[in-house]
Amino acid sequence: MAIDIKSSQEFLQAKKQAMCKLNNAYNEKKVDNDILPLLDLINSIDQYYTTSSCAGRIVLLELPRIGDKKNASFLGKWHRPINREEFSNAAKRAKKGWIWFFAQSPILHLAAKNVNDAEKLVKLSISSGFKNTGIRSLGKKIIVEISSTERLDCPIGKDGKLFCARKYKDILVETANELLNRSQEKLDVLQDEIERKFLF
Amino acid sequence: MAIDIKSSQEFLQAKKQAMCKLNNAYNEKKVDNDILPLLDLINSIDQYYTTSSCAGRIVLLELPRIGDKKNASFLGKWHRPINREEFSNAAKRAKKGWIWFFAQSPILHLAAKNVNDAEKLVKLSISSGFKNTGIRSLGKKIIVEISSTERLDCPIGKDGKLFCARKYKDILVETANELLNRSQEKLDVLQDEIERKFLF
Repeated sequence: MAIDIKSSQEFLQAKKQAMCKLNNAYNEKKVDNDILPLLDLINSIDQYYTTSSCAGRIVLLELPRIGDKKNASFLGKWHRPINREEFSNAAKRAKKGWIWFFAQSPILHLAAKNVNDAEKLVKLSISSGFKNTGIRSLGKKIIVEISSTERLDCPIGKDGKLFCARKYKDILVETANELLNRSQEKLDVLQDEIERKFLF
Repeated sequence: MAIDIKSSQEFLQAKKQAMCKLNNAYNEKKVDNDILPLLDLINSIDQYYTTSSCAGRIVLLELPRIGDKKNASFLGKWHRPINREEFSNAAKRAKKGWIWFFAQSPILHLAAKNVNDAEKLVKLSISSGFKNTGIRSLGKKIIVEISSTERLDCPIGKDGKLFCARKYKDILVETANELLNRSQEKLDVLQDEIERKFLF
């Protein structure tokens, strides 16, 4: 099965534009450093180009109602491990609504030249531990989302007050940091696997 | 674009087998009641058949190390809202390792006749609120995974002891129940949308 959704020329043109956008994002320091080598690797392969990415993050969020992410506001957002003081200072900003603490694993969107290429990367990503990977769109562009299952999603307070005691806060921060570090290791594994499959 | 991955005959044969398996699962009461109408609806459409499903669940798990789900053991598992006593009784079974509390949203796997059909259902599911939906496999079978993003993933204790106070336990249980109820509502929305798109 080798099905071209867009012609090679159209794909190349779209890749060129995406690389230009990525370059601007690099220069404005809007790309997570931890994921840069993986992005560069993927973009060095003819059949793919990346369209967006996050290397994983720790987030403290305030939501008016459970699940209402549309009307949520960030109390804190970090793309690196954090310490107890950072957590506490961010939590102090809470006023009204539910306070949730998240550790989110990496997420990466990329376009593939054809369905075959997309499938190849989906398989490789799943076997590298990114179990939530799949083809999200087959329309104008073939978009693959690479993502993982590990995360922390905890309701930790309401209306400015935390439910959890000091010791528990420390454990939440420690766990979020550990998940973030594991994410980085998983990105390294994925990078090795892509190199092995596509470059050698 | 209309690409048949398997011939109609092969697809029909595989669907027949899957329906036989599903029927056995029905009879052994191994299918969540809450998701049955959706499964029946999807299976009534020529282009699809379901291969596995979970209507969403609440889980109390014991893990030797963070993220080590392979060696985890269930302390409690429910496909319905729970009460404080059920939570506490399950937590009492904990002995060694991390205790995590999860609320997991519905997940549904289905085979589609061709890539076009798969894409149609991916789009519909994403727009119905199942944001994690994607094509997982394009090999022998075209498999779509329908899943959502809402969840609760909390480390709540270690080596048999809970970190969280009684009041916080109540809030965790309440939140998990709410997420489960919201899952059911989302399944209803998806069902309505599929009916609208495919049956009328």
